Amino acid sequence: MSELNVKEYMAELGRKARIASRVIAAAPTALKNKALLAIANELDKSRITLVSENQKDLAAGKANGLDAAMLDRLAVKPATIDGMIEGLRQVAALADPCGEITGMSYRPSGIQVGKMRVPLGVVGIIYESRPNVTIDAASLCLKSGNAAILRGGSEAIHSNRAIANCLQAGLKAAGLPADVVQVVETTDRAAVGELITMPQFVDVIVPRGGKGLIERISTDAKVPVIKHLDGICHVYIDDKADLDKAFTISMNAKTHRYGVCNAMETLLVHEQVAAQILPRLAAAYAEKGVELRGDEKTRDLISANVATEEDWATEYLAPILSIKIVSGLDEAIAHINQYSSQHTDAIVSEDYTRARRFITEVDSASVMVNASTRFADGFEYGLGAEIGISTDKIHARGPVGLEGLTSQKWVVFGDGHIRA
Amino acid sequence: MSELNVKEYMAELGRKARIASRVIAAAPTALKNKALLAIANELDKSRITLVSENQKDLAAGKANGLDAAMLDRLAVKPATIDGMIEGLRQVAALADPCGEITGMSYRPSGIQVGKMRVPLGVVGIIYESRPNVTIDAASLCLKSGNAAILRGGSEAIHSNRAIANCLQAGLKAAGLPADVVQVVETTDRAAVGELITMPQFVDVIVPRGGKGLIERISTDAKVPVIKHLDGICHVYIDDKADLDKAFTISMNAKTHRYGVCNAMETLLVHEQVAAQILPRLAAAYAEKGVELRGDEKTRDLISANVATEEDWATEYLAPILSIKIVSGLDEAIAHINQYSSQHTDAIVSEDYTRARRFITEVDSASVMVNASTRFADGFEYGLGAEIGISTDKIHARGPVGLEGLTSQKWVVFGDGHIRA
Repeated sequence: MSELNVKEYMAELGRKARIASRVIAAAPTALKNKALLAIANELDKSRITLVSENQKDLAAGKANGLDAAMLDRLAVKPATIDGMIEGLRQVAALADPCGEITGMSYRPSGIQVGKMRVPLGVVGIIYESRPNVTIDAASLCLKSGNAAILRGGSEAIHSNRAIANCLQAGLKAAGLPADVVQVVETTDRAAVGELITMPQFVDVIVPRGGKGLIERISTDAKVPVIKHLDGICHVYIDDKADLDKAFTISMNAKTHRYGVCNAMETLLVHEQVAAQILPRLAAAYAEKGVELRGDEKTRDLISANVATEEDWATEYLAPILSIKIVSGLDEAIAHINQYSSQHTDAIVSEDYTRARRFITEVDSASVMVNASTRFADGFEYGLGAEIGISTDKIHARGPVGLEGLTSQKWVVFGDGHIRA
Repeated sequence: MSELNVKEYMAELGRKARIASRVIAAAPTALKNKALLAIANELDKSRITLVSENQKDLAAGKANGLDAAMLDRLAVKPATIDGMIEGLRQVAALADPCGEITGMSYRPSGIQVGKMRVPLGVVGIIYESRPNVTIDAASLCLKSGNAAILRGGSEAIHSNRAIANCLQAGLKAAGLPADVVQVVETTDRAAVGELITMPQFVDVIVPRGGKGLIERISTDAKVPVIKHLDGICHVYIDDKADLDKAFTISMNAKTHRYGVCNAMETLLVHEQVAAQILPRLAAAYAEKGVELRGDEKTRDLISANVATEEDWATEYLAPILSIKIVSGLDEAIAHINQYSSQHTDAIVSEDYTRARRFITEVDSASVMVNASTRFADGFEYGLGAEIGISTDKIHARGPVGLEGLTSQKWVVFGDGHIRA
């Protein structure tokens, strides 16, 4: 596609999405659920096509030298399709966030004022590799009353087109316009540039992928972005900690899964308990094959590599942990507020006042007391589903579910009231 | 100041604001209120200086040919100072939004999860002319636990510096860092460019001023912007309207004040009642000196100039009203969703289903039934104060008070809980 054609193509998607957004915003809950289940039905009917189209992507991926992990994320297996179908059913079962009216009350003027939860309008989702994100993202946008424009990775284009066909067939079967969910069918990179600079057609962008992709999009976007950058998460073990809880939480936060954003990357330990807890932890981490990097005081107590300034600011996503011994809560909070990516940070302490100070003063999307950072997740928090985890402070922080894809408008009821 | 110096100067303000933001975020309500009242006290003590510094701005303004309206907005009179002091006291009396925890509940895993309302961090406010905005903006940021960087118009620099001195003295008197509210003390335009492109130091920008200023800032900002563009507000008179209510609301929405964003700019009238209501309205508007511009059907009924396509998309901010006769609710909603600036739109109808459809399907920040659009205002809605009116859909829509300067983070309480 030529540059001009991409521009026109994306503008046309945008125009159609804006029109479809009016229809889906006003659609009753039952109709949206019907469409979700119809899409699940279409996926079930199209299993053979989905797998065979995915084979084309996998073959191209192998030819282009994608590594095994990338190919694994790209693969659409029968179990992947089962998962997509189950996800659609789960989203259909969630409560509809739209239309909820809260805080309705009378004002001295006599008008009644409240807020109504409403869709954002058109959501643009940009993601990489995993074709099942197409269904995840589409279902959450649909249920929250938004039209969606989905731009998957070029390496998954055949899979995404096949999924798009199921989406459109399902929407039509339910009596909704197919344009409620559109999949960008060109692999031209210029399409992303267009999608993030059409504020007249797109109300918010949700990028899902590596930090590089998200930083590029945030820099160039002329549309608000709900972004998830990195997860440099901390656990602080206070001297008033129950050391058994501290041990269990520190092990879980680091070793439950390594490549996830809510894994602990830095452990802060109060100097009064470091000699008690660190050797025990070091032995357990060694058993799991976790590389330790510590400050000088840490290295006086346990065997560890040198932690540099860079380590405090690094999201390892790997079996590596940096450890720092601190003089107390003040230093722990200062360290976290300087180096944390404001994703998730936890304190382990039995002290009421310190726990209270930690949750108030640590400026992160999730703050925890005596719990593993691994809980920072839309499902664990009860959102039922998750479009992403926001490291922004505006609009939505932390795990973003259906509510994060909505906003609130003001509703005023009068009886001929005028302003005096 | 050289370009490099402006960059360094603004970065220094940003660094200081970020540090101060930690202090004000953790400050107890009583301390924030003490600071607000101390600032009021400083203003009261500095009346002579405030007026004499303002005289310098007024003299320069006259020399530079500012018109009478501009000079009026720029003037700091004794009553202006009274207003600022009263405003500070009112904000001190408002409930503190910070720290509110909602939705705390147990999850199947055993953790307890809820949301805590917290400040955004550092708020940059860019405004024109009126020096009293300096106090308005500072007080709302302070009460909501945010540090603020305020950039007023260059024509008000002496007034703003004098107000800044009161702000800083009041903060210090209360025992808070003076950097909690900083006023940009250079009139160099490059300072704005810096302020809106320092995401590491500034969490949100609130521009207050003309549409041109706001569009420029939105285009160039690398920081989220809570913006208020224009107010093209509609009143739709349904054929099921009580025509006395319709008359009163239409007059109030247009003629109560002309230069305000929540004034009606376009009146839509159902064809079945147009012949009854329009001549009565036309006579009343003529008495007020309102110029009418109508579509062809309107001009068949009353004397009016021709309304062009451009009229439907124009915020007059003047005694001008465009009028269109529509075939019913569908056409009214379609017209509004096409031409409204999504600020405030109202229906006048006694019909339950149509009222319900209007508030659901009209995609504007405020939707009203049988009430004047003039009610779209933070004070009228009970926010106690208003930093602006958002025409955005993300984060905050419509009048933005203290809550709009906050966000919600997740709080998790456990007892040694780990993820299975």
